[in-house]
Amino acid sequence: MTELLLNHLGGRAQAGTGQGTILVDPVLGTELVRVDATGLDLAAGFAFARDHAGPALRALTYAQRGEMLAAAGKVLQARRDEYYAISTANSGTVRNDTAVDVDGAIFTLGAYARSAATLGARTHLVDGDAVSLSKDASFQSQHVQVPTRGVALFINAFNFPAWGLWEKAAPALLSGVPVIVKPATATAWLTQRMVQDVLEAGVFPPGALSVICGSSAGLMDQLKPFDVVSFTGSADTAAVIRSHPAIVRASVRVNIEADSINSAVLLPGEASGSASFDLFVKEVAREMTVKSGQKCTAIRRMFVPESLFDAAAEAIAARLQKNTVGNPRNDSVRMGSLVSRAQFDAVRAGLSGLKAHARTLYDGDTQALVDADRAVACCMGPTLLGATDPDANALVHDTEVFGPVATLMPYRDLPHALQLVQRGQGSLVASLYGSDNAALGSCALDLAASHGRVHAVSPEVAASHTGHGNVMPQSLHGGPGRAGGGEELGGLRALNFYHRRAAVQGAQAVLSQIH
Amino acid sequence: MTELLLNHLGGRAQAGTGQGTILVDPVLGTELVRVDATGLDLAAGFAFARDHAGPALRALTYAQRGEMLAAAGKVLQARRDEYYAISTANSGTVRNDTAVDVDGAIFTLGAYARSAATLGARTHLVDGDAVSLSKDASFQSQHVQVPTRGVALFINAFNFPAWGLWEKAAPALLSGVPVIVKPATATAWLTQRMVQDVLEAGVFPPGALSVICGSSAGLMDQLKPFDVVSFTGSADTAAVIRSHPAIVRASVRVNIEADSINSAVLLPGEASGSASFDLFVKEVAREMTVKSGQKCTAIRRMFVPESLFDAAAEAIAARLQKNTVGNPRNDSVRMGSLVSRAQFDAVRAGLSGLKAHARTLYDGDTQALVDADRAVACCMGPTLLGATDPDANALVHDTEVFGPVATLMPYRDLPHALQLVQRGQGSLVASLYGSDNAALGSCALDLAASHGRVHAVSPEVAASHTGHGNVMPQSLHGGPGRAGGGEELGGLRALNFYHRRAAVQGAQAVLSQIH
Repeated sequence: MTELLLNHLGGRAQAGTGQGTILVDPVLGTELVRVDATGLDLAAGFAFARDHAGPALRALTYAQRGEMLAAAGKVLQARRDEYYAISTANSGTVRNDTAVDVDGAIFTLGAYARSAATLGARTHLVDGDAVSLSKDASFQSQHVQVPTRGVALFINAFNFPAWGLWEKAAPALLSGVPVIVKPATATAWLTQRMVQDVLEAGVFPPGALSVICGSSAGLMDQLKPFDVVSFTGSADTAAVIRSHPAIVRASVRVNIEADSINSAVLLPGEASGSASFDLFVKEVAREMTVKSGQKCTAIRRMFVPESLFDAAAEAIAARLQKNTVGNPRNDSVRMGSLVSRAQFDAVRAGLSGLKAHARTLYDGDTQALVDADRAVACCMGPTLLGATDPDANALVHDTEVFGPVATLMPYRDLPHALQLVQRGQGSLVASLYGSDNAALGSCALDLAASHGRVHAVSPEVAASHTGHGNVMPQSLHGGPGRAGGGEELGGLRALNFYHRRAAVQGAQAVLSQIH
Repeated sequence: MTELLLNHLGGRAQAGTGQGTILVDPVLGTELVRVDATGLDLAAGFAFARDHAGPALRALTYAQRGEMLAAAGKVLQARRDEYYAISTANSGTVRNDTAVDVDGAIFTLGAYARSAATLGARTHLVDGDAVSLSKDASFQSQHVQVPTRGVALFINAFNFPAWGLWEKAAPALLSGVPVIVKPATATAWLTQRMVQDVLEAGVFPPGALSVICGSSAGLMDQLKPFDVVSFTGSADTAAVIRSHPAIVRASVRVNIEADSINSAVLLPGEASGSASFDLFVKEVAREMTVKSGQKCTAIRRMFVPESLFDAAAEAIAARLQKNTVGNPRNDSVRMGSLVSRAQFDAVRAGLSGLKAHARTLYDGDTQALVDADRAVACCMGPTLLGATDPDANALVHDTEVFGPVATLMPYRDLPHALQLVQRGQGSLVASLYGSDNAALGSCALDLAASHGRVHAVSPEVAASHTGHGNVMPQSLHGGPGRAGGGEELGGLRALNFYHRRAAVQGAQAVLSQIH
């Protein structure tokens, strides 16, 4: 029987007592490891984190916690090759796609370790300046942010087992809040291994970082008023979480990142073959294929002026044609597999739904798979769709097919383009391509109301822009409406979620004690 | 038949088509006016606010919107006497208690009008500095806050028909977000009149401010992803709101202010009769009687060192004894009535529940009512309870009796006191009384994790402190956990709720367009 991965909870390793769920290599179909959370004493584990790890973390300064993050980053860096191997086996990713997850995690951890230095030898944050509440200024108000006295529960998605853990854990632990992560079962191995490695290295106080692999049953029931929960995944599961009594009754703070039908817009006035046109085409093709389109931030809808529809379709298709799909262990392969048979089937079903309302402009399934058996491997080529009447087409604005699929649409003028983008009802990111800085700026402001991030690409940043779908720790990650309404990252803004804000009112001599 | 108050929705006055609900004078029992929302086209009304008033407001700068708030304040100031009369008739308040609501509303409106000037001739906010995302600094990230493109629905409480409207509407309108307020039916008159007066004065664009009086049926169903909803009231209704599909499915942003079992703590080391002791006693007695204890922020639990329990009980009782209860039209009356028979009955029931677990240290019902008929008037005297075993007494930490009722408890030492305060599971405000500035500062920081505001009273601020229960616009109003997890006011922090944050990434030449 395959190895049963251990859970880490309550400051110790704990094996589930059930048969477990088998994790599978999505390319070869082989069994890898098992995960199981049966029989864990969740209440005791959560209480240990809340009552032991929390006070231990909060007794440290931000600078000291930052040093722990740096130490964790070193542990991960030293084991990087193992993580690449796990990612290839469990997620079916080529090296470049593994890097987005694993190196992205280490980079984000490092960014928070460095930013801790700016917070220094403090154990709480001062929020703004004191203001006087009395005419003689003897009585004043000073806001503070103090770490919440609970645990942070992360219910994570399958597509980023490494980055998805650390982009949330870094600000939580820096804030002094213990973390309990429940990775998505299909790809839980990498999360479990990273947590285990960091725990074995003794980087954090006991109970500060826990991992529970397997079923999420009962996890939400453990939450108390000062805990927080952060979820990344489907809108359906998000609705279940938001309806839970912990949220509804106990005001447990919740952060949701759910479906997002992200857009890319080529602004008017850019000719076919212009620098902006080429940047748009390149980025669209890249976003469709990176991690086989399994990024919450990936471009799903592309908007171009009507006159450029055919040229854009041809140019994107030409790029996609150079793509090679198959076994990530073969160096000639550019795109590996989807993470599981279930995801493969879901993407197929979604694509089939979209195809009923769109033309297929490029069909990646005409390509042969490299070194992979189509009957076994969860591989599929990228598919470019086209919808020439985007006003009448509701489905394309509403459907997130979580794979290498995107739809090209024509717009009449800029207001029409912006209106179509907003049919997504709130998204994580939109990208704009053009050479008119004023137009880029005003469009970005317009889309800021419905997006967590707007990414403007002009020819002068051709070499330096960070990519539509790449989430930089310095920038907000999250989006309103359909995207879940959450806020992550954004530099030190991420710490807000793990702190409680309060106004302290008193004499200056009292307020001077809390600076 | 009594006058039927008009709703204002969709940019016009609209009468409900039903019989309506009668509003009653809680002291005299006479019928005042009727409210009714039957037959309103809510969808059209919300759409008008969202699609007409929103763009009109957002086209203005913060400074221009601030001028509108100032103009609204002038309208209210000119009609102040009428509002006092409505408050006395509909809420049964004495002049001092009316002032907390009416003058508090005008003051808060003025504070936001003035703060608008600091935001200037802008239509969006810049959030922090730009940071570089590339080695050569050619590609950067700049966060902005832009007004949300929806409406703000307020479902308000009965205890502050004036302040409860304007403390929310001022930051919403300043942010460029249209407001639709549904006041609690029992005291809806004052809210309705204020809105009507401001609308008739033509202060705001059509549809920017709406009022719906009567049933809240169907209101939540109108909400779309970029709308926000703010609720003040019971935990039970809060749970219904939080479970609504608009919140759960569409990520409509929600702010909740619910039950709060606020505390006052006399720190150790203050003798009976000391300045701090006297400040504590005075504030407790004041908080119990202001607005007949019908403030979300009122002191419900008082903690004193064991050795001072009897002295504190006597001193508070002595102050309460000087109180006079009855018809607010009689100048000798210090405390009027509860707002309605329903509230009177609820407070009686709550008090009776607490009495089963506490001693009565002072029973205000032994006092005669002044100028009021006990069979008709919803008047009750203040009641001081005592619970000498606060560790074993769960009820007193869990029960918010929304009237002139509070419970005194002894503590062993400071850690014990702080632990007892936190049995409230998150509150709006705690106040501390003492002369040791270091102790006041460290206790305030400790309680900041579970309170939206901590109010420290030392002898030097005896004359200048703003009161435990008074909500200053400069300070945060809200609290975690049982208190609902909301954040209101706090100066310009209030604008966050009505804005959407986004990171704009681009070339410096693009970002310079959005400054």
